[in-house]
Amino acid sequence: VRVDLNADLGEGFGAYTVGDDAAVLAFVTSANVACGFHGGDPRVMDRTVALAVRRAVAVGAHPGHFDLRGFGRRPIPAEPDEIEADVLYQVGALAAFARAHGTRLAHVKPHGALYNQAAADPGIARAVARGVARADGSLVLVGLAGSGPMREAAAAEGLRFAAEAFADRRYEADGTLRSRRLPDAVLADPDAVAAQALAIVRDGRATAADGSTVTLRADTLCIHGDAPNAGAVAEAVRGALAHAGIDVRPLSA
Amino acid sequence: VRVDLNADLGEGFGAYTVGDDAAVLAFVTSANVACGFHGGDPRVMDRTVALAVRRAVAVGAHPGHFDLRGFGRRPIPAEPDEIEADVLYQVGALAAFARAHGTRLAHVKPHGALYNQAAADPGIARAVARGVARADGSLVLVGLAGSGPMREAAAAEGLRFAAEAFADRRYEADGTLRSRRLPDAVLADPDAVAAQALAIVRDGRATAADGSTVTLRADTLCIHGDAPNAGAVAEAVRGALAHAGIDVRPLSA
Amino acid sequence: VRVDLNADLGEGFGAYTVGDDAAVLAFVTSANVACGFHGGDPRVMDRTVALAVRRAVAVGAHPGHFDLRGFGRRPIPAEPDEIEADVLYQVGALAAFARAHGTRLAHVKPHGALYNQAAADPGIARAVARGVARADGSLVLVGLAGSGPMREAAAAEGLRFAAEAFADRRYEADGTLRSRRLPDAVLADPDAVAAQALAIVRDGRATAADGSTVTLRADTLCIHGDAPNAGAVAEAVRGALAHAGIDVRPLSA
Amino acid sequence: VRVDLNADLGEGFGAYTVGDDAAVLAFVTSANVACGFHGGDPRVMDRTVALAVRRAVAVGAHPGHFDLRGFGRRPIPAEPDEIEADVLYQVGALAAFARAHGTRLAHVKPHGALYNQAAADPGIARAVARGVARADGSLVLVGLAGSGPMREAAAAEGLRFAAEAFADRRYEADGTLRSRRLPDAVLADPDAVAAQALAIVRDGRATAADGSTVTLRADTLCIHGDAPNAGAVAEAVRGALAHAGIDVRPLSA
Repeated sequence: VRVDLNADLGEGFGAYTVGDDAAVLAFVTSANVACGFHGGDPRVMDRTVALAVRRAVAVGAHPGHFDLRGFGRRPIPAEPDEIEADVLYQVGALAAFARAHGTRLAHVKPHGALYNQAAADPGIARAVARGVARADGSLVLVGLAGSGPMREAAAAEGLRFAAEAFADRRYEADGTLRSRRLPDAVLADPDAVAAQALAIVRDGRATAADGSTVTLRADTLCIHGDAPNAGAVAEAVRGALAHAGIDVRPLSA
Repeated sequence: VRVDLNADLGEGFGAYTVGDDAAVLAFVTSANVACGFHGGDPRVMDRTVALAVRRAVAVGAHPGHFDLRGFGRRPIPAEPDEIEADVLYQVGALAAFARAHGTRLAHVKPHGALYNQAAADPGIARAVARGVARADGSLVLVGLAGSGPMREAAAAEGLRFAAEAFADRRYEADGTLRSRRLPDAVLADPDAVAAQALAIVRDGRATAADGSTVTLRADTLCIHGDAPNAGAVAEAVRGALAHAGIDVRPLSA
Repeated sequence: VRVDLNADLGEGFGAYTVGDDAAVLAFVTSANVACGFHGGDPRVMDRTVALAVRRAVAVGAHPGHFDLRGFGRRPIPAEPDEIEADVLYQVGALAAFARAHGTRLAHVKPHGALYNQAAADPGIARAVARGVARADGSLVLVGLAGSGPMREAAAAEGLRFAAEAFADRRYEADGTLRSRRLPDAVLADPDAVAAQALAIVRDGRATAADGSTVTLRADTLCIHGDAPNAGAVAEAVRGALAHAGIDVRPLSA
Repeated sequence: VRVDLNADLGEGFGAYTVGDDAAVLAFVTSANVACGFHGGDPRVMDRTVALAVRRAVAVGAHPGHFDLRGFGRRPIPAEPDEIEADVLYQVGALAAFARAHGTRLAHVKPHGALYNQAAADPGIARAVARGVARADGSLVLVGLAGSGPMREAAAAEGLRFAAEAFADRRYEADGTLRSRRLPDAVLADPDAVAAQALAIVRDGRATAADGSTVTLRADTLCIHGDAPNAGAVAEAVRGALAHAGIDVRPLSA
């Protein structure tokens, strides 16, 4: 049994900082690096990629809508050709930093609203996949476990797809994520996050908000890097997986 | 005798348009494509690169300061590592579009204030050259003919340097460009621009504002794409060079 | 019989220009001045208000979504309190320029997608009206003729409402505007625009795309300032109205 | 003896947050609220003004360069008419929020690089003062204690000037602020800040970095709201001043 452990990193902008990237990087195997549209700027990208490479963490692009004010969390209306070009642009920019630091981009995971839109809307999933494929056909496209549109868009563009589950988000009975507007949407306790991580990876299931069991098959687990205790959460998850004999390694390994 | 003919293109943003790119592309051999910081956006870049490839025009990056409001014409204070990262980001983004259209980036020419700062300031020239070299060591760095800092920065980073002269800008006796604040800084008449182009390429000289003669050695000539008559100017220059038997072709050819 | 004639002006940004404001200002009675979110910047606002005051044209605010890349034409998802604050911000900023030029803001007309959203969605109409009322309860709120949500939101906030019709846009049989995606959505011929203007103001009706007659009651007519022949169109409309004895004057006069 | 105690607040943007405004607002008498150019956005402005009014803290505008990426700390090159318009725009926008919350703007304090440029450059000081005066001639202009250009610009525009000193920044022997690039530029210990505050207000002097004594006369003391212990610092300063019998109240009281 194996799994990748990923986190969204490098989401600061100028003088604004978010999360404790260095703490999280010590425990994950893949870094999704913001590309300047919803967060991140070139200097932040340069430093984040350098940190990831030093930690031997696989580097992926985390492209979002051109919406700094909304942090990429709003479904900005955009034509498919605009989404495709936006993804190609961001992936290309981050790929340059990866090469400059002696590595290659391993994967692409859309951010925020773009991730959710692509999980549900075949047209948007296809635009994202086209942008990724035009950048580099060997990239792995990361999307919501169970999303037909993302899996199919990846296949149509000849990309390998990796299903993602969330160690620190509560699920609904139908396998979707519980809305962030609800108070119990996010698991904050490191032990609870580690327990859900283990349940997903070892047993292929998680306990939903209503107490029922959800079946999940995940190639990679996301840990959010912007929680105040993000480092402790990442350490707990990594420790629990290691203790259970799970092989934690990057998607491309 | 040979020369490259270049123009700055793709400088619109969203609903804002600048210049008549299609008209100019019919006559130049290199396109400097804006990369989204001073002008341009991903969709504009996609279309501009597609147009250039269709016309068999060499594609280069035209990175500028992150200053849409100032159109990259203001010397924004930035640390060398920020300039380096900004250049790497922009070159990487445009390179992705070039590859997606089946070509490779041929050159990089900084835009506006960044061009002028790099021409005069060794620290900024070096930051620009480092950003270019980190993106791709085979790129040609285009800078002001006669600029020591740019030539030396290119050499220090192992980049080929191409000296640029301006067909449509008036020169001062010392070889610098006449300030745009002066009314006669820009040559508007297509025949006058063509005459200066020919003088520079064939004879290695231009007549300065004070009537004296300036010595210039140029690998590439710039024609501005945002003049109302940019297409007519480009056509006149290309025609005059061809008529004189000058070999007009891209830098990398 | 009287009517106001309005145009959207000051929509350039930095080096980017749109339309020929001076030509249009000679013929309209109200100027809707962009406020920096979808277009416009402080210097452009200063100059546009100065021009309008010199021409004795009433000055109004033209607030839009914070979306320069989309020119305010995309329905950016935003909470009501964000729309309200965005409107209050933009109206407050433009009001300062109006006062500095010795006049007062007369009206507020939302721009682009915000205008269309407010015309159809009571929650958004109310957020816009609240932003306007919080800025100045004596402002006139301009909205689509026939829009219940806008009229009702204005009433609920104690604002005077002015119904707007479009001299240069083709109508559908149900009184909505024909989509800009259709080739005949915009009337370009000055005489055709003038004829529609007269039909609306004098007869309270316009001929729809399908040949049927639409009933319209308008307090103000919009002429778009960004058409290449915007000045000629404005002159034709003003001339036709004057010739028919229509009293053309600002809403507040 | 009396003094005003001010802090820069509302400097977050979208999802990015800075400082603990609520903690600081409990102890200051004036709030300098960011206006959306270097930080802040309309919703943040609305909430910050509401908080200040609830605490009976005087509200002032804190306009900066249009430079979110640089957080307004870079001297962006701008023409005087652009600076003037930028200040007028930002002050007008914040004044609308102040009126909507039942108060009036009391003062304007330029932010970051604009503050430093205006302190040293008469042309920039004059452009700032003109922008303020055009917005409202009754506003107090806050600037660096000892700055001739700011004091003279305020006088030339008929504005009242308030001299500002810094409780938590170390001074040089010539009365300028020690560069933030030096490690001991900022006083972090609440007691040290309180001691410097008391020395400035009661004795009109501070101890410079080299141990010498600097003479300072201040109408208002700045406490930075973005330090991790900003609330504790503000509390210590307010307590020390109160204990010494200093009358702490807004500039306009």
